[in-house]
Amino acid sequence: MNQLHNELKKEFQLERLILFSDAVFAIAITLLIIEIKVPEVHENISDDVLLGELGHLIPKFVGFIVSFLLIGLYWSIHHRMFGFVTAYDGRLRFLNLLFLFFIVLMPFSTGFYSEYAGSELFRKQLKVPMTFYVLNFSSAGFVNYMMWRYITNPKHKLTEPQIDPLVAKLAKSRALMVPIIFLAMLPVAYLTNVLIAVYIPMLIPFALRISKRIISKRHKQVHKTIPVT
Amino acid sequence: MNQLHNELKKEFQLERLILFSDAVFAIAITLLIIEIKVPEVHENISDDVLLGELGHLIPKFVGFIVSFLLIGLYWSIHHRMFGFVTAYDGRLRFLNLLFLFFIVLMPFSTGFYSEYAGSELFRKQLKVPMTFYVLNFSSAGFVNYMMWRYITNPKHKLTEPQIDPLVAKLAKSRALMVPIIFLAMLPVAYLTNVLIAVYIPMLIPFALRISKRIISKRHKQVHKTIPVT
Amino acid sequence: MNQLHNELKKEFQLERLILFSDAVFAIAITLLIIEIKVPEVHENISDDVLLGELGHLIPKFVGFIVSFLLIGLYWSIHHRMFGFVTAYDGRLRFLNLLFLFFIVLMPFSTGFYSEYAGSELFRKQLKVPMTFYVLNFSSAGFVNYMMWRYITNPKHKLTEPQIDPLVAKLAKSRALMVPIIFLAMLPVAYLTNVLIAVYIPMLIPFALRISKRIISKRHKQVHKTIPVT
Amino acid sequence: MNQLHNELKKEFQLERLILFSDAVFAIAITLLIIEIKVPEVHENISDDVLLGELGHLIPKFVGFIVSFLLIGLYWSIHHRMFGFVTAYDGRLRFLNLLFLFFIVLMPFSTGFYSEYAGSELFRKQLKVPMTFYVLNFSSAGFVNYMMWRYITNPKHKLTEPQIDPLVAKLAKSRALMVPIIFLAMLPVAYLTNVLIAVYIPMLIPFALRISKRIISKRHKQVHKTIPVT
Repeated sequence: MNQLHNELKKEFQLERLILFSDAVFAIAITLLIIEIKVPEVHENISDDVLLGELGHLIPKFVGFIVSFLLIGLYWSIHHRMFGFVTAYDGRLRFLNLLFLFFIVLMPFSTGFYSEYAGSELFRKQLKVPMTFYVLNFSSAGFVNYMMWRYITNPKHKLTEPQIDPLVAKLAKSRALMVPIIFLAMLPVAYLTNVLIAVYIPMLIPFALRISKRIISKRHKQVHKTIPVT
Repeated sequence: MNQLHNELKKEFQLERLILFSDAVFAIAITLLIIEIKVPEVHENISDDVLLGELGHLIPKFVGFIVSFLLIGLYWSIHHRMFGFVTAYDGRLRFLNLLFLFFIVLMPFSTGFYSEYAGSELFRKQLKVPMTFYVLNFSSAGFVNYMMWRYITNPKHKLTEPQIDPLVAKLAKSRALMVPIIFLAMLPVAYLTNVLIAVYIPMLIPFALRISKRIISKRHKQVHKTIPVT
Repeated sequence: MNQLHNELKKEFQLERLILFSDAVFAIAITLLIIEIKVPEVHENISDDVLLGELGHLIPKFVGFIVSFLLIGLYWSIHHRMFGFVTAYDGRLRFLNLLFLFFIVLMPFSTGFYSEYAGSELFRKQLKVPMTFYVLNFSSAGFVNYMMWRYITNPKHKLTEPQIDPLVAKLAKSRALMVPIIFLAMLPVAYLTNVLIAVYIPMLIPFALRISKRIISKRHKQVHKTIPVT
Repeated sequence: MNQLHNELKKEFQLERLILFSDAVFAIAITLLIIEIKVPEVHENISDDVLLGELGHLIPKFVGFIVSFLLIGLYWSIHHRMFGFVTAYDGRLRFLNLLFLFFIVLMPFSTGFYSEYAGSELFRKQLKVPMTFYVLNFSSAGFVNYMMWRYITNPKHKLTEPQIDPLVAKLAKSRALMVPIIFLAMLPVAYLTNVLIAVYIPMLIPFALRISKRIISKRHKQVHKTIPVT
């Protein structure tokens, strides 16, 4: 009974770490909307004026959608990662907190980037807000990679049963891919044109899909039957 | 033991998806209040002036109440829906995220709609804020319908035991009903009068009650004893 | 196995209702701080000036502390109440949502009340902000009372084992006591002096303590041994 | 069955207390970012101007990072503390609420401190914002100490198995250490120089590490084998 109790307690402690992270994710993803202020028109209110005001908010909405998808993506990855984890230690707790730090910073970065992502961005070739955004998001990506590396290392005994080495290897390479694609925005923006850099993140879904196909293929070669979740 | 452990882990993963959604719902429903700013009077403060200020906030409060009820309604539906769900896959996770996207957008839409829902709305027949609100909310409704369709499809094996086909069919038709009633506001507003359109959502409780009665009746005809939850 | 699974699923559904409420409580209690804006001094910054600015915030801080305690109190009551609950139905879900509505409104009411609770309040005998605050908070109290009445009614079969009738009766009377004491502020404010009304909530801890003593005494007379939790 | 049910219910009640605390922590840690407003430049927007604006935000970012780490540290301590706790009573619930009160206050204190922590701070030797911050944070620390003292007292029967007296003693001394180091900032700031006081919190990681080493050493002397978690 006591054995079982301790086992349950240990599991609850891990769950608490996870649910705390979920709450932070949920708040960060919801705070994104706070950065979009309701347009306040006090004189000559008309549908045309309001439509124009909404038009000015388009960069804000695009930023909101992109960041919502990115935080959602990282939540999904976090969700899948901790699907493997069965124990934790102080270092994983720290890495997780560091990861959450960059997630919490996202509403600010998104607000900053999308504040200056209107027509001004292209005419003036502003690079500072984009650089800030890219550094924030790719930092989250690199910490995510470090977390994958840490939990898949059999020495740390954080997953039981152990993660298939092939799955581990490919999870890590996918974790690296996202921040590297993002970082690629910077040389493109500084050397060529900001307008081109803006569209680079669109490569991510394709890259993830391709890598998934590669994983599945290699995985089938090795295991034959077990599907990748 | 390991079997049970994996079973529990899988269940916890599903619970985590659900609790993350709950947190987003909770934050979105609470952020609604942030859009109502405390009136700031600095000169000639008196009860009459403050009462007047509160009076100006009435559209904001109405918007707050309506959106609170609507998000609460969708939370209840989400709650009931996931009462059936016993497994999930990437696609359900994506649909859920898309659903949450429209929930997170609600505080903005509510703020925008209620900002211009005062006496101006009727005099100037403003349609843009209402259109935005209606599109946001009915989008949530349609994604909700897609989720019902997805989980009740026996092919995806997401519910166990399988949902009664009659219950499934009627859940789906109810899920469609809410956004369709909402969308009906738009032709009414554009073709007749905004003032009439505003009251259309009041039909929802009646429509839901009527459909519930129909479900119960048909259900009894088929099953005789089992009640609808 | 399936039986147990359904039992667990039903319990999880109830837990979800509870944890959603907890999230709303947590957000409402934390949003209170948002109403206190950091003082912004741009010229002649000095410790004295900043101390003066903090001084002006005292009513805000008092409001924050009082509302924190009140929401904390209601969270504790909700926590204790759902310690008895083992099942739920649509009506309890609705009452709970209504209860949360008044909790979510608290940050606004607190901000409004404390905005005008400075020296102005007494000189000008402002009653509107206090009335709003009192009505908000006592509404929460009355819904709370309705929830107690609903779950302790053996007909609804929401608690198992059934709540001791004496405990139920006294829980209900305590639930009524808090909003009634609050409502007493209004006649005092309107008929005598706002300054006196402000201090009435201080009676609550005493009233709760006294009623607890009475419960314990009567309880002992009936049960002899079982303590009141 | 009923016995087990009650046992589970009791455990869930404790979990609810913990998860409510987690939600408050998560919100407080995420609200920190709200205090950093996106710089709004409307004329002569250029990368240099935006970089300058970001430069002005450096004290805000430092405050954000420090408070994120401190709240994260207290969350970790809370997490570890409740890893021992297996029961709770009204007093622990109250202490926990008091602890959360000072956590909720942190975003305000951080905003206030970092608003005036720019170059002004040192030139004008402002002490009020720092004093407010230090008092807030060290209050949280002292309540944390009181919680450790309360739960490690075998009389209250809140942990099972009982906490090793040595572990308890050292947990308490570490809990005291953090607020005392913080309080040390005040005499240093008032008697010598604000600029020196600012760096005192950097001692905390070292102090915690040293105390951990001492714990481990003494612990090994007594128990030989069991590691400190």
